[in-house]
Amino acid sequence: MTNTNEAANAFINQDIISVTQFNTQNLEYIFKRAHQMRELVERDGASDLLKGKVLACLFYEPSTRTSASFIAAMARLGGRIIPITQGVQFSSVSKGESLADTIRTLEQYSDVVVLRHPETGSAQQAADAANIPVINAGDGTGEHPTQALLDLFTIYEELGTLDNLKIAMVGDLRYGRTVHSLTKLLTLYNVSLRFVSPETLRMPLTIMNEVIDAKLEVRETHDIADVIENADVLYVTRVQKERFSDMKQYEEVKGYYEITPEIMKQAKSKMIVLHPLPRVGEIHYDVDSDPRAAYFRQVKNGMYVRMALLAAVLGK
Amino acid sequence: MTNTNEAANAFINQDIISVTQFNTQNLEYIFKRAHQMRELVERDGASDLLKGKVLACLFYEPSTRTSASFIAAMARLGGRIIPITQGVQFSSVSKGESLADTIRTLEQYSDVVVLRHPETGSAQQAADAANIPVINAGDGTGEHPTQALLDLFTIYEELGTLDNLKIAMVGDLRYGRTVHSLTKLLTLYNVSLRFVSPETLRMPLTIMNEVIDAKLEVRETHDIADVIENADVLYVTRVQKERFSDMKQYEEVKGYYEITPEIMKQAKSKMIVLHPLPRVGEIHYDVDSDPRAAYFRQVKNGMYVRMALLAAVLGK
Amino acid sequence: MTNTNEAANAFINQDIISVTQFNTQNLEYIFKRAHQMRELVERDGASDLLKGKVLACLFYEPSTRTSASFIAAMARLGGRIIPITQGVQFSSVSKGESLADTIRTLEQYSDVVVLRHPETGSAQQAADAANIPVINAGDGTGEHPTQALLDLFTIYEELGTLDNLKIAMVGDLRYGRTVHSLTKLLTLYNVSLRFVSPETLRMPLTIMNEVIDAKLEVRETHDIADVIENADVLYVTRVQKERFSDMKQYEEVKGYYEITPEIMKQAKSKMIVLHPLPRVGEIHYDVDSDPRAAYFRQVKNGMYVRMALLAAVLGK
Repeated sequence: MTNTNEAANAFINQDIISVTQFNTQNLEYIFKRAHQMRELVERDGASDLLKGKVLACLFYEPSTRTSASFIAAMARLGGRIIPITQGVQFSSVSKGESLADTIRTLEQYSDVVVLRHPETGSAQQAADAANIPVINAGDGTGEHPTQALLDLFTIYEELGTLDNLKIAMVGDLRYGRTVHSLTKLLTLYNVSLRFVSPETLRMPLTIMNEVIDAKLEVRETHDIADVIENADVLYVTRVQKERFSDMKQYEEVKGYYEITPEIMKQAKSKMIVLHPLPRVGEIHYDVDSDPRAAYFRQVKNGMYVRMALLAAVLGK
Repeated sequence: MTNTNEAANAFINQDIISVTQFNTQNLEYIFKRAHQMRELVERDGASDLLKGKVLACLFYEPSTRTSASFIAAMARLGGRIIPITQGVQFSSVSKGESLADTIRTLEQYSDVVVLRHPETGSAQQAADAANIPVINAGDGTGEHPTQALLDLFTIYEELGTLDNLKIAMVGDLRYGRTVHSLTKLLTLYNVSLRFVSPETLRMPLTIMNEVIDAKLEVRETHDIADVIENADVLYVTRVQKERFSDMKQYEEVKGYYEITPEIMKQAKSKMIVLHPLPRVGEIHYDVDSDPRAAYFRQVKNGMYVRMALLAAVLGK
Repeated sequence: MTNTNEAANAFINQDIISVTQFNTQNLEYIFKRAHQMRELVERDGASDLLKGKVLACLFYEPSTRTSASFIAAMARLGGRIIPITQGVQFSSVSKGESLADTIRTLEQYSDVVVLRHPETGSAQQAADAANIPVINAGDGTGEHPTQALLDLFTIYEELGTLDNLKIAMVGDLRYGRTVHSLTKLLTLYNVSLRFVSPETLRMPLTIMNEVIDAKLEVRETHDIADVIENADVLYVTRVQKERFSDMKQYEEVKGYYEITPEIMKQAKSKMIVLHPLPRVGEIHYDVDSDPRAAYFRQVKNGMYVRMALLAAVLGK
């Protein structure tokens, strides 16, 4: 059994930059807190846990979904938000200010910073400059750790465990940041992985090697049919048009990986379908009413996980 | 006498999409609540009635006035706001997400959605997708029901009744969404209507027929002089330049319908001048100091009506 | 000794438009309140002093730093914010609405307005239209009084006095709005001024004459070396590239006025370095760790001064 106090202390005033900073004990703590946040919201809607705390929400590129999730998380804990989700490029930043100076300025006003930035490594750079916790809300092709945490938390909440699961990831596994981060977290558990993608969008070598080094059972395929019957989790990603030079190939691939009610008939009755959203045709709208369609519950879990993280890094 | 509980229950968890969904009983309830909100704000500034509630304010086109009014309404009731008033087009939406998915995502974070969208019918579409109440803050050339409610509430608050009034509408009656919606609501009451417009901007046939079917006394004219002496309400609208192909004609019309202190001298001492704002010359600035100039009080009533609606749909 | 009640009353419901409206008694009161705000934030993070109050934050041009500071100030006092920091030009304003009408509209929703506007004189224009307090957050090349107040407050907080100080201003003294406003405030005290700039960027005649009329000791120089040993305050400003037609001259000047650890070695042990930020090379990053580098504390003081002003004009 883990020591909750130790895990709690491990988060106080810490930055959340990368999935690599977590171990199973940390994750268990965050998931326990996230579950409590769910109970709190379902019972009371909100609390005053972070009353008097201020979150600077600094988004150098727009992400309605992620910023809304953090804003809702802070609001439901009674904290306040400084939203800087636009105009960044026209203001002090355009006057040539360094990211470090912008962060050092914002930390005078706030207790925690959430940063979204188009450049890989910028979150760590911000964390190095700041004396208050920095939470990475996506830095370019780098990390988006809170997305990976909410994905993992959703599996845990929906299926009650993270062990002995068969998890299939479907679609663009090459460029999809979310499947890379989730896979890294899953190497901490005893799971069996299936990677389903077109040949050109296979999981990168480095991630494959991490999976193999972790001695997880893993298998690649081009065909959903190979995995659908045994999967406990089907994690579907967007196949983005701009990845293809040949539009005909895109159209073929796109339709090939669409989850339909017909495909769902072949799946287990207790499996779940996840998707980081937004979707553009990868999951048919008729699947939404299937109780196994968990992707909107996954969105809600994002708020709970971010509530847990905000409370944890602020020591509450 | 209406049954207040019944009227209150009729609003719980309901969408506010169109003026056609209201009857006199509903309106009486909302106006009673709006009046209480005025007393609350004048006495205490704000309350905690919606503490712990979160409003997602989703504006696909900017409308400073309307979004500010909803934000103020929620803030003065102690609720929180997720403002999504920009960047919508650059973010998940630009990735091809459907309005239904965007709404289903936001409802994971929030308790009520206010939607402004350029396409007619989008508010109903959002309401169909959502499990939480959706309030239409304007959908294209369609409806803007909260504007019509605040217009009607202002007449009621200022004159103490909605019956046996002579109400004149002036300016662009053809394209003006606000006069159409207000006229529809007025068919529920025993009022006498006067429509004052240039020939090319007369009230559309469909609205005229609704008025006639409701057996209201109604008359059209090109001339303010025909109505000014007897009007209890002068509802002035913008005559928009872009409606005219002949700029000379625009300039003539524009000046012709300007409300000036001279015109006000011919009006009753108890009449009121309303305008949905912004104005661009339809009401002379020197009229502002006239106690009958009610258009800024009308703005404030917008906040009270929105407070009443937010509280009503959230069952508080 | 000043009368605190009298000074407090002098602020209630007042606009903050220009540094010229302050005297030493007012300043003493605001600095006392700002110091209390610092103690409050350091002890509790926030208070409920302005609970139920609403601030309309109307920014016609983006200024991340200033808007974030006001938002944080209002949030830490428990008040609410209507942020109108974008889209202003696309919305009611683009429909030709006057600034006066926009302000009269916003005052229906809010208790105080903070205005940033590109045109000189617009803040006074807004204040004339409004019945609620208007705070000028910068109007073109005109005034930015809260910046000057936070600069002066920082000197007072850091050095414990505003009298008998040697204050050197360095860089672009011709176009720098902040040095002009700060200099005007300093004429109220018994200080000795040193103006250090390239020939083309010397302090304007009008400001020089105000200093001379106030009988302050003052001296101009091109060289930091002339002032560094005796200065109690080194106020550094950006030298903006766009002020130079000759880029070679810009590069010379720019490097010439950079504050480095070497230059800091020549300064007093108790002096402080200030900068309105953002900086673009005027102060070397290695100076940041010097305890005399006060520019980020200066940022934080901005929040305290704005908290003090908001509380004061709202009579709390």
